[in-house]
Amino acid sequence: MTAATGRSTGEPRAGGGDALLTDLYQLTMLQVYHARWMTEEAVFDLFVRRLPESRNLLLACGLEHALDYLEGLRFERSDLDYLERVGLFEDDFLSWLEDFRFTGDVYAVPEGTPVFANEPLLEIVAPLPEAQLVESYVMSQVHFATVAASKALRVVTAARGRRVVDFGMRRMHGRDAALKAARAFHIAGVDATSNVLAGKLYDLPVAGTMAHSFIQAHDSEPAAFRDFAATYPETVLLVDTYDTLDGVRNVVRLAEVLGPEFRVRGIRLDSGDLDELAKASRQILDEAGLDRVEIFASGSLDEHEVERLVESGAPITGFGVGTRMGVSSDAPSLDMAYKLTEYAGRGRLKLAPGKRILPGKKQVFRSERDGRAVGDAIALVDEDLPGRPLLRKVMERGRRLAAASPSLRELRAHARSELDGLPPGLFALRPAEPPYPVSISTRLEAYAREVAAEATAQETA
Amino acid sequence: MTAATGRSTGEPRAGGGDALLTDLYQLTMLQVYHARWMTEEAVFDLFVRRLPESRNLLLACGLEHALDYLEGLRFERSDLDYLERVGLFEDDFLSWLEDFRFTGDVYAVPEGTPVFANEPLLEIVAPLPEAQLVESYVMSQVHFATVAASKALRVVTAARGRRVVDFGMRRMHGRDAALKAARAFHIAGVDATSNVLAGKLYDLPVAGTMAHSFIQAHDSEPAAFRDFAATYPETVLLVDTYDTLDGVRNVVRLAEVLGPEFRVRGIRLDSGDLDELAKASRQILDEAGLDRVEIFASGSLDEHEVERLVESGAPITGFGVGTRMGVSSDAPSLDMAYKLTEYAGRGRLKLAPGKRILPGKKQVFRSERDGRAVGDAIALVDEDLPGRPLLRKVMERGRRLAAASPSLRELRAHARSELDGLPPGLFALRPAEPPYPVSISTRLEAYAREVAAEATAQETA
Repeated sequence: MTAATGRSTGEPRAGGGDALLTDLYQLTMLQVYHARWMTEEAVFDLFVRRLPESRNLLLACGLEHALDYLEGLRFERSDLDYLERVGLFEDDFLSWLEDFRFTGDVYAVPEGTPVFANEPLLEIVAPLPEAQLVESYVMSQVHFATVAASKALRVVTAARGRRVVDFGMRRMHGRDAALKAARAFHIAGVDATSNVLAGKLYDLPVAGTMAHSFIQAHDSEPAAFRDFAATYPETVLLVDTYDTLDGVRNVVRLAEVLGPEFRVRGIRLDSGDLDELAKASRQILDEAGLDRVEIFASGSLDEHEVERLVESGAPITGFGVGTRMGVSSDAPSLDMAYKLTEYAGRGRLKLAPGKRILPGKKQVFRSERDGRAVGDAIALVDEDLPGRPLLRKVMERGRRLAAASPSLRELRAHARSELDGLPPGLFALRPAEPPYPVSISTRLEAYAREVAAEATAQETA
Repeated sequence: MTAATGRSTGEPRAGGGDALLTDLYQLTMLQVYHARWMTEEAVFDLFVRRLPESRNLLLACGLEHALDYLEGLRFERSDLDYLERVGLFEDDFLSWLEDFRFTGDVYAVPEGTPVFANEPLLEIVAPLPEAQLVESYVMSQVHFATVAASKALRVVTAARGRRVVDFGMRRMHGRDAALKAARAFHIAGVDATSNVLAGKLYDLPVAGTMAHSFIQAHDSEPAAFRDFAATYPETVLLVDTYDTLDGVRNVVRLAEVLGPEFRVRGIRLDSGDLDELAKASRQILDEAGLDRVEIFASGSLDEHEVERLVESGAPITGFGVGTRMGVSSDAPSLDMAYKLTEYAGRGRLKLAPGKRILPGKKQVFRSERDGRAVGDAIALVDEDLPGRPLLRKVMERGRRLAAASPSLRELRAHARSELDGLPPGLFALRPAEPPYPVSISTRLEAYAREVAAEATAQETA
């Protein structure tokens, strides 16, 4: 195991090669912006319209990869050749794309900051074509990492200090998801991952010992345990391949055979009634004097099952949580939007029902009383309201600011500290009553009404 | 737009650099296999234990990327250096990993083949360490692509011949998911994708015109429509930024202004009651003589909403389907397993409850009557049962067989043809009654009992 000490290194930068990882309509719009000289300053907000029913808060995540992309963004020759073949773009526009760079400013809440509905996680201020093009990729990274961190936080909360290990790689949605989720999980408080490449790229603690196939490939379970413990004396043995409690008895027998050389650290249960089996296993181990052998559990776990096991007093000290955390099975997506809120110095919104946009550049103020957050206010950027502003400038003219490159360890600590300051009721797995209060400032409300009146006129102007 | 004509090219091959994209326990097991010379032939099956409640069938997908990985698999210097730092591996083992290659055989059903519970999608026959290591990555690719194709098939079915376009890139789980899903969607019958890089890499038709921000950035909606149509005369205009029916009237006005030069192909509705709005929009367009302007719909669509719109007679000719298809929101994962079924010539299974493994090398036979599939039988590989065998050899000694490289166009046609041969009842969005019949051959059942008896003995042997 290695500690999480540093900022990610070694991973291929996004951007170069990924300029086409966007929706076609961004490029068709860009060609018109280019043709019409619509290159004045635009402001886009990235926010979540409504939280999933089962979420009392979200943990913002994914900023690092969005900034990597913005810094590296450029079109390669083969991208331009492809766009030419698509048949929708003129030479003049394609030449312009050749020198296209992101030169804007980015404001964002640090990764690991709890956020709520309508609060910008990120605000991009850039010439319209730049701020437009980057929508799809920036959202893709921040959306998924926020989905993953927010789900993992629930599992970590339910485990109440017991160890949580990410086992989800194999059923997550592909390579990028498996890597980015492992990193997001770490920020949310997960202790280790089984994903070796994530361990390498992000310097995360890695964990794992054996699968059922290892037991099956041996002539007997005792032989498999013996072989494994010979190479890894302080290991965790998987006991449920044939019969869980017989498996535990085979561990006890191994201890008898090895005597003082027995240093097995734990057993893992992966099927059946984990509560009942953990209690019965504990008893067998204790009766054999193996009270320092710990019990780990895995197998279709989620936050509800972890909570049930913890509340029933199952003697389990760690959980391996896979698919349900990895795909955030109860809420695999968020109602996240990236919306134009200002262009050429004028506030913008749309009037489509249920899809409110708050116009203008904004700030979020979090008010605290006795060290505990009591409510947020979404305001215009030049307001000075009580509370701590959450959005900070992290990129200026396309360059990341030094202060915006915290280490993963710092992000995890930041998340912990921010979470410790929230009302405890938000950490229940069920919807919190009352929900965390988020208000919109009087000035922002007034500005929104003003811009809406203009927009109504724009329908037919 | 480009047609889907060829096999994917231009995409960086997986494998090199991705050897560590695996679970740590694969590597700890490998070190013991290496130390104990456990390198005899192993057979692993990749299959789905139970279908999600809402799925009557799955569309197998992702094989191509699994084979890319197997062909390219090797450990780089930096991988081995990292493993050394992890502290669990000896020099002797790390040297052996340096020359590690996948040298095994792979049997699989072609992508686009409908499969059911317990049927192997893929069978790997290789020396134990090789077949073991590749589990995590191979499953990750086949699992997600199968999730995506199976979900898309439902949307395509519900659309009954109307156009379906993938709009999901931004809220899918990262880069790899967005690319692989677009490809899987194409195999399942989706017509186009908004994802430009997927279009480039897989030669898929791409689609998309404008977002709300384009309208908002203009001084008025009519000005925005005028600007866009000047660059793209045969376009689709988004009409719901301010008020949907006013937006449609603005399209009518544009037609009046442009006269014979008006060639707008369609409008897109993205919010509100799509059924009602489509009918009202149709009436406005028809009254203005614009009966050839089509109506497209998008906005939180899934197969149920598409079915509702089609059944209510909404005059919609195409659907843009995003997040819910992109993350397969009702079933974002499958109960997929990769299990050792034979080692060193002996059948293997496990006895954990609810996690049955069928031992041995297998074949699946699909029986047809009057050109219509009537049931499958899972059998031992050397059985000769009625019906068409589904599993084919696609890789031999680590090299892909030429016959196993169909073009995407061929895979899409294969899927269509296989699906046309299934009982129509399977295509209902609700659980089919009766479900498609899958039996286990008498010989395989007998063999499973025999191996189970041996396994019981293995508990304590």
